[in-house]
Amino acid sequence: MKKIVLASKSLDRGRILREARVPFSILISKVNEVPFKKRLSNNPIKLVEELAKAKALSAKLTLMENRKESIIIAADTIIEFKGEIIGKAKDENQAFQILRKLAGNAHNLITGVAITETSNPKIIVDHDSTTVKFLNLKDHEIWNYVKTGEWRGRAGCYSARDKASLFVDMIIGSTSNVIGLPLHKVYEILKKEFNVDLLKNSN
Amino acid sequence: MKKIVLASKSLDRGRILREARVPFSILISKVNEVPFKKRLSNNPIKLVEELAKAKALSAKLTLMENRKESIIIAADTIIEFKGEIIGKAKDENQAFQILRKLAGNAHNLITGVAITETSNPKIIVDHDSTTVKFLNLKDHEIWNYVKTGEWRGRAGCYSARDKASLFVDMIIGSTSNVIGLPLHKVYEILKKEFNVDLLKNSN
Repeated sequence: MKKIVLASKSLDRGRILREARVPFSILISKVNEVPFKKRLSNNPIKLVEELAKAKALSAKLTLMENRKESIIIAADTIIEFKGEIIGKAKDENQAFQILRKLAGNAHNLITGVAITETSNPKIIVDHDSTTVKFLNLKDHEIWNYVKTGEWRGRAGCYSARDKASLFVDMIIGSTSNVIGLPLHKVYEILKKEFNVDLLKNSN
Repeated sequence: MKKIVLASKSLDRGRILREARVPFSILISKVNEVPFKKRLSNNPIKLVEELAKAKALSAKLTLMENRKESIIIAADTIIEFKGEIIGKAKDENQAFQILRKLAGNAHNLITGVAITETSNPKIIVDHDSTTVKFLNLKDHEIWNYVKTGEWRGRAGCYSARDKASLFVDMIIGSTSNVIGLPLHKVYEILKKEFNVDLLKNSN
């Protein structure tokens, strides 16, 4: 199978690929996200798609310089709640405020995904959106969760797979997208556009 | 925190509790499921609730004989597709036939959950239902999946967390229920009925 490079430092995205037994390596691409976020603050879908594309192209450049043949998968995730884009928290207080907004409500988790390969000018960009509803939580429950530290480095300050599965009431959409990588989309894009079959190449 | 016993041999259920960092031990309870399945073949919700209850009570009896104080969590999962109850497959051919039915369609995954404790006559029984939709799959794709062996011991012959996340298109409902234990229900029942707060008692 062609080598797969995940252009993401997200441990959660790596975890999804590992659980699906997809062999891959990681290359963290450096993209300055600030201008994207300023320009596209009113268009969350376009924002995550453009960020995923920029990450994929940055990784592709590095790999081409090193003459390494690879498929590159990049992604970017944000949370949208009542028209507002919610990212990561800087400290416990901010995490508490974000989780307090989300508790008892539904929000949308949107991931942009971009796939390209070093030997091919083709780049496919797509997105997936999942609605996530939390149980009602009292302030002390939110603080108990904040203290677990799971909020760190995560858009929306939770990990639906771990302790937060205690209060993720329901979702509508892709389960892997909730963790940051819509794997069914990746599977279909790789199969149709890059002739890679992740089901066939099991290990 | 009170000791928690999971009355289930399901590796998936244990995985959910471990990921949520809930300390627990396992006690496999022996329940003859055949009479339940005969009697309640037309009522999937009642079937999983009664099986979960029987498993919980069987485990409770063993623990009481050994004078061990514990909270007991038991569960039973089935898949319902167009009015038919779908369980586990016996061999690869049966797994292929089951997955072929489910491919491109939506099915319901229903889990009954029963919670009790050794020192308390109270037993709470509830259920959760999640709709799961698969991508369309060609026969050779289904065979590729069957060859992974993930179908073994699983109702509906898939593990939404692992290789099957490549073709789980979307779900409506609880993500932990898809793996066999609706953790948000367990969290609420333990909090309201047994004075146990799984968020507070993080480890």
